[in-house]
Amino acid sequence: MTHRITLAHGDGGEATHRLIGEIFYPAFGNPALLQGGDSALLELPGAGRLALTTDSFVVHPLFFPGGDLGRLAVCGTVNDLAVAGARPLWLSAGFIIEEGFPVADLRRLVEGMAAAASEAGVQIVTGDTKVVGRGQADGCFINTAGVGLVPPGRDLGAHRIRTGQAILVSGPVGGHGVAVLSARAGLAFETPVRSDAAPLAGLADAVLRAAPGVACMRDPTRGGLATALADLAADSGLDLWVSESDVPVEPAVQGAAEMLGLDPLYLACEGRILLFCPAAEAESALAALRDHPYGAGARVIGSVGGPGGRAYLRTAIGGTRRLERLAGENLPRIC
Amino acid sequence: MTHRITLAHGDGGEATHRLIGEIFYPAFGNPALLQGGDSALLELPGAGRLALTTDSFVVHPLFFPGGDLGRLAVCGTVNDLAVAGARPLWLSAGFIIEEGFPVADLRRLVEGMAAAASEAGVQIVTGDTKVVGRGQADGCFINTAGVGLVPPGRDLGAHRIRTGQAILVSGPVGGHGVAVLSARAGLAFETPVRSDAAPLAGLADAVLRAAPGVACMRDPTRGGLATALADLAADSGLDLWVSESDVPVEPAVQGAAEMLGLDPLYLACEGRILLFCPAAEAESALAALRDHPYGAGARVIGSVGGPGGRAYLRTAIGGTRRLERLAGENLPRIC
Repeated sequence: MTHRITLAHGDGGEATHRLIGEIFYPAFGNPALLQGGDSALLELPGAGRLALTTDSFVVHPLFFPGGDLGRLAVCGTVNDLAVAGARPLWLSAGFIIEEGFPVADLRRLVEGMAAAASEAGVQIVTGDTKVVGRGQADGCFINTAGVGLVPPGRDLGAHRIRTGQAILVSGPVGGHGVAVLSARAGLAFETPVRSDAAPLAGLADAVLRAAPGVACMRDPTRGGLATALADLAADSGLDLWVSESDVPVEPAVQGAAEMLGLDPLYLACEGRILLFCPAAEAESALAALRDHPYGAGARVIGSVGGPGGRAYLRTAIGGTRRLERLAGENLPRIC
Repeated sequence: MTHRITLAHGDGGEATHRLIGEIFYPAFGNPALLQGGDSALLELPGAGRLALTTDSFVVHPLFFPGGDLGRLAVCGTVNDLAVAGARPLWLSAGFIIEEGFPVADLRRLVEGMAAAASEAGVQIVTGDTKVVGRGQADGCFINTAGVGLVPPGRDLGAHRIRTGQAILVSGPVGGHGVAVLSARAGLAFETPVRSDAAPLAGLADAVLRAAPGVACMRDPTRGGLATALADLAADSGLDLWVSESDVPVEPAVQGAAEMLGLDPLYLACEGRILLFCPAAEAESALAALRDHPYGAGARVIGSVGGPGGRAYLRTAIGGTRRLERLAGENLPRIC
């Protein structure tokens, strides 16, 4: 490991993975932490299992097409709970604000949080505000932690991925990353790209009802769809195969990503679910996703292969490309 | 309200109070949030009540006599749960790190967290790491959120404060504030002042067993003992009277505070409990506190008066001084 923290340690890819493995896991090690996934699952006698998750949001700029830091801070944590199969209930909110930050901007962020919380059916029940001097932070950072309840008998996770299962994604990928990066660069496209940031508790619930055999869900945020696939391949020990021509990418996202020199498969989403289910349930899962406003662009994108633990993309021109975790792309502050 | 966030908005005193009342409460308003206190209490059918709390820690410098940012990040959240009467169970940890931060320092902070968590009997079960560019944060900020369980029938809070109750504090105040401020200023005293940062779950449990009539506990952090008293006076609607000569302040803290031009009653503690109990239980509460390593310096410091909602100090020279919330002292980044 390097002697200093680099931007890559925060990009959700290979370097983040190593940092967690070398520093956090050995110090904090306990079964709930080591089970992986973005939410810890915790037995609470009498009530079933709690899910607990946290995320800090440091996106720059704070306001971008389709969302803002506040909306993101609620959606990101709600979605981590939702893909763990939990019903999101309560959030905490911790603000770190730079001296001189406009109160009007804080108000807008707080309103974005309140609207997203209301839509997701969660309550922000406790909070904290810290202020640091000028130049000691960049505007405003928001941390949220979330608590949800996992219904009895529900068990989602990489350990339930099996050979032959279908792989679905609930909509076009990379929109959030392009929206933030183009807002940061001050780029204006003919067709403006909006962030997909959305709270997905309702969508997750709908698909779990329609396809009770769903084995695993993940929201592909930092590192994008490709990193999520690489992680789940490693965690399940199985090869995952997806087809480039089946992965939905909006043309405007594709065009902007090309202009920025980036691969949409590695760009963050903040309103998409990557989902694994038995092949026999793929059609009902797909129908349930498409029936929901946030899942209208859902697609089956591939299937689970045999042992191996790697993710592969069948390219549009007939080749095969291994999808590894995002490594050193230095795309900071997208989430 | 001013148009820009000032350091005072983060000092836990009057300006923080106004910011919460004018921006956060109207947007997020729900019963759990509005009940006040640092922990939200949440009914969970079958399991009783959960306590949920969060704090971001931005202390500068990161390492100081008696503690570090990591130890503080665990103690602060554990203590918010403990004074709500909850048994602390699980923490989340969110790191925001500046590019270039030494990995060795991160390791030390993480070890400080692990040691404090182990002492407090809590597990750090989920986390998040973000990295921002150089100059976009100051070293490392840590957010923790905590979940605890409140035993059936336990009800602590300002609403249970009654005229005639005794007011106790579990040890000398202001040590944490002086330790951080003197480390920041590079001051060395003949008798070095160490932070009181400590996880208080065991101490809170011991006093609640010995004095089941305890009505309210609070940990006086930002804004110190005086601000905590002013808050509880306002929340209870009763006058609180404490005696200056009974409030324990270590001589080294007193001396350093005078040199820095600060009042120890307004300096943060990170390992003290302010406690209200029936006068008849004051002796057993005091004995239970003193019997614990973190309560050896406990004292009865005053009593609850009649209606009014103000906090007063009887000074050592026989006068009376009103204790208001910390206002505009600009003591940032102590916690």
